[in-house]
Amino acid sequence: MSWFRNLAKISTLKSLQSSSSSPAAKLHNHHTPPNYLFNSLSHFTSNAFASASAAPKPTPYAGLEPTREGAEKPRVVVLGTGWAACRLMKGIDTNMYDVVCVSPRNHMVFTPLLASTCVGTLEFRSVAEPIGRIQPAISKEPGSYFFLAKCTALDTNQHVVHCETVTDGPSSVAPWKFNISYDKLVIALGAEASTFGIHGVKEHAIFLREVYHAQEIRRRLLLNLMLSDVPGVSEGEKKRLLHCVVVGGGPTGVEFSGELSDFIMRDVRQRYAHVKDYIHVTLIEANEILSSFDDRLRRYATNQLTKSGVRLVRGTVKDVEPQQLILNDGTEVPYGLLVWSTGVGPSPLVKSLDLPKSPGGRIGIDEWLRVPSVEDVFAIGDCSGFLETTGKPVLPALAQVAERQGKYLASLLNKIGKAGGGRANSAKDMEFGDPFVYKHLGSMATIGSYKALVDLRQSKEGRGISLAGFVSWFVWRSAYLTRVISWRNRLYVAINWATTFVFGRDISRI
Amino acid sequence: MSWFRNLAKISTLKSLQSSSSSPAAKLHNHHTPPNYLFNSLSHFTSNAFASASAAPKPTPYAGLEPTREGAEKPRVVVLGTGWAACRLMKGIDTNMYDVVCVSPRNHMVFTPLLASTCVGTLEFRSVAEPIGRIQPAISKEPGSYFFLAKCTALDTNQHVVHCETVTDGPSSVAPWKFNISYDKLVIALGAEASTFGIHGVKEHAIFLREVYHAQEIRRRLLLNLMLSDVPGVSEGEKKRLLHCVVVGGGPTGVEFSGELSDFIMRDVRQRYAHVKDYIHVTLIEANEILSSFDDRLRRYATNQLTKSGVRLVRGTVKDVEPQQLILNDGTEVPYGLLVWSTGVGPSPLVKSLDLPKSPGGRIGIDEWLRVPSVEDVFAIGDCSGFLETTGKPVLPALAQVAERQGKYLASLLNKIGKAGGGRANSAKDMEFGDPFVYKHLGSMATIGSYKALVDLRQSKEGRGISLAGFVSWFVWRSAYLTRVISWRNRLYVAINWATTFVFGRDISRI
Repeated sequence: MSWFRNLAKISTLKSLQSSSSSPAAKLHNHHTPPNYLFNSLSHFTSNAFASASAAPKPTPYAGLEPTREGAEKPRVVVLGTGWAACRLMKGIDTNMYDVVCVSPRNHMVFTPLLASTCVGTLEFRSVAEPIGRIQPAISKEPGSYFFLAKCTALDTNQHVVHCETVTDGPSSVAPWKFNISYDKLVIALGAEASTFGIHGVKEHAIFLREVYHAQEIRRRLLLNLMLSDVPGVSEGEKKRLLHCVVVGGGPTGVEFSGELSDFIMRDVRQRYAHVKDYIHVTLIEANEILSSFDDRLRRYATNQLTKSGVRLVRGTVKDVEPQQLILNDGTEVPYGLLVWSTGVGPSPLVKSLDLPKSPGGRIGIDEWLRVPSVEDVFAIGDCSGFLETTGKPVLPALAQVAERQGKYLASLLNKIGKAGGGRANSAKDMEFGDPFVYKHLGSMATIGSYKALVDLRQSKEGRGISLAGFVSWFVWRSAYLTRVISWRNRLYVAINWATTFVFGRDISRI
Repeated sequence: MSWFRNLAKISTLKSLQSSSSSPAAKLHNHHTPPNYLFNSLSHFTSNAFASASAAPKPTPYAGLEPTREGAEKPRVVVLGTGWAACRLMKGIDTNMYDVVCVSPRNHMVFTPLLASTCVGTLEFRSVAEPIGRIQPAISKEPGSYFFLAKCTALDTNQHVVHCETVTDGPSSVAPWKFNISYDKLVIALGAEASTFGIHGVKEHAIFLREVYHAQEIRRRLLLNLMLSDVPGVSEGEKKRLLHCVVVGGGPTGVEFSGELSDFIMRDVRQRYAHVKDYIHVTLIEANEILSSFDDRLRRYATNQLTKSGVRLVRGTVKDVEPQQLILNDGTEVPYGLLVWSTGVGPSPLVKSLDLPKSPGGRIGIDEWLRVPSVEDVFAIGDCSGFLETTGKPVLPALAQVAERQGKYLASLLNKIGKAGGGRANSAKDMEFGDPFVYKHLGSMATIGSYKALVDLRQSKEGRGISLAGFVSWFVWRSAYLTRVISWRNRLYVAINWATTFVFGRDISRI
């Protein structure tokens, strides 16, 4: 038992230290609303109070100090774990740099396949890739880290990032703040689902951007299926519970509608025979669905979705209530499940940052993905956009763009490092070489029932091949299968698809 | 849009009906604390208020009325979805009976493998089997149902079960009550983790009985691993965060400790190199670990666990606080994760039921698993025990026992049905034939690092083969692989084991 005694001693010792009011100690009980928002989405709020009941015991040292020439490698701090951030971390030369990643989630989400997880076509874990597997150095190298935290502010003059830990309900630790000094900073914070300030969206609709969103959609769908079967539910209530409404006819909305109608056609009809005639999917879009695709594909998609039972409704949402939404023309649309996928906009943090902005309020960057007017700061992915001065259009918020930017910046940083410009303020007058140029490889979207769209045109106006139907569905699957990052997940996705094909989708509600 | 208009009409119509105070209508806004407890464990409390905001619209009809000779099959109502209930439902002849299952979860949990899911050796879904796949009739036959609800009371004279729906946070429906008339009732409600009234256990410890428990343990473990890496955490706090304490040295506790030390040895050392020296597992047991196994195996297990870094502590817990627990001898044991597996006892509902009880407060049954003194009521699994009058000992709370009882009762009910005793009160003077006899097939437990124990003795005193080591680990795995119910899950478990072996465990925190 001596071990415990020692441990007890140590902790008391440390707690004495902490009571000496170090700057860190002061910050320990800080909470910020966003943090609570995150909490409320976590699994276990049963003992949420525990997290308030205790603050961690800080040491006087609370942060990563500037790197020292000779003693340490230059430090690249990456904010975010999306497509851009992960592609960058994958490509960066960890013999030259230490990598520190800050994000509220420790995995990358393979967003194009997220819709499939909601109905059990894929397992959740198959579309999530731990950062440690994308860039092993982060969990091995002494100077590289992943911090489960969110960035709260930047000090670009001091080259410092202010962070706060993300701790949800179950943890008996209150969030605390710390600082990280950087030599190079890469902002890849992504964007935020846009609600256009429509009342009730945040409260009642579910987005489809994180794994926990997919989990929520799945649980809600299965709950409604089961509740609608219980004695005492009226016809109207059954219809409402089993009415799935998707707002937004972009690829995400369309893919989710497609998956959902597949799920209904193939699985619900067998497994929930009692209520099969009550479940319906409605896709609400203000303009055209899949507006980025060419007309032929769009018509094809419209027919396919309609055939597979998806109601396409042209309309604009005015208000969202707990059990129904109201369209501009006053129509009341009762729903049991409401999924919101109407595109993205800049997050509050991005808005708050004192940096040049691009049209649309993203962080403004030049052709080398640098943020001008400050040293050693880069921005990639959905949070960034070309400055007007570059004369280039702001690129669309696509995984494709983010991934390409991450790849480019990785090699650029490696080049800078090789040229001895890795440290803070040491690359001022360096020649950066070729700027970043984006080539659109085309768009893909699945529309359910083993059909998909592949649009290989360079731009909306440009000409080029466009496919629709089973062939392109096959192209779609293979394309993604080769892009799911680790072999483990490739294997799992393949197996998921195979088992779904053979056994149907999983319907256990866990 | 006409569809929506009609729908709107229907709902208003029904809501008018509901306002006419039908007995059902009155019950609709009833909430019971247990229900909230369940809510608090669900994923989404963000809009929990929604569930209060709206009550469902009842039809005058709210329940399943008594079955009518000629019109319907006799109805077997099964309470629970554990080993006993599921084995029964699997075996029951659905040409002879309609089956109605009532449970707060729509799947069976393959409990022996639950410990493996906490550390990512297995996926959660691999150990959960949807009821619809165990007994397809439930989702297909017009008279068979699964109701996501819990039993609140019994009326054995009227042959009626009182139920209340289980609706968690996200649902915009308030729970409501309904009744089910039965011809035969099978109570398989299982047991409840026992806390021995120790203060703080329910609030701060995690049990290991449901899939959401495993999910909570996994999330907590990964959260602590990541938090302990963030700047500002003291040495003592790191030690605490990464100290996993398991209370209870039964098979569950031992298997979990074993899995955990495997996880630490094999995965944490690589993936969390910075903190690998801080993570420790302690197993606290008041008496001997694995007391049901023979001495040789017990000694073997003790050595193996100690070798793989599990601290075995003989002690009794006096009090549990948010960050530490206190032993009877006053030792303070700081913990970051506390798992409680000290056996089970009867649940509040079982205690509340006005039925004969066995020693230990379980529902008293005779040799035919009948509850005497009432007609057509049977009890199986952990919630039941032989009456003293039978002269038989109360059987241990093992999956093995529950499974055997379910199998026996299925064939007994089929026999009764064939003899025309399916309806309520129609089997009064029937000859039931051979009573239920339990033959212990022996016990198995894995202790990590590819080692397990297999004890094939009939009883604690009896003699017989007992194995330890890799061979029995192999026996253990194959035994379970053949017992995981559906082929889909057998496949998944096999694949999980294979990929874990090749790629290591998954560490994404979703």
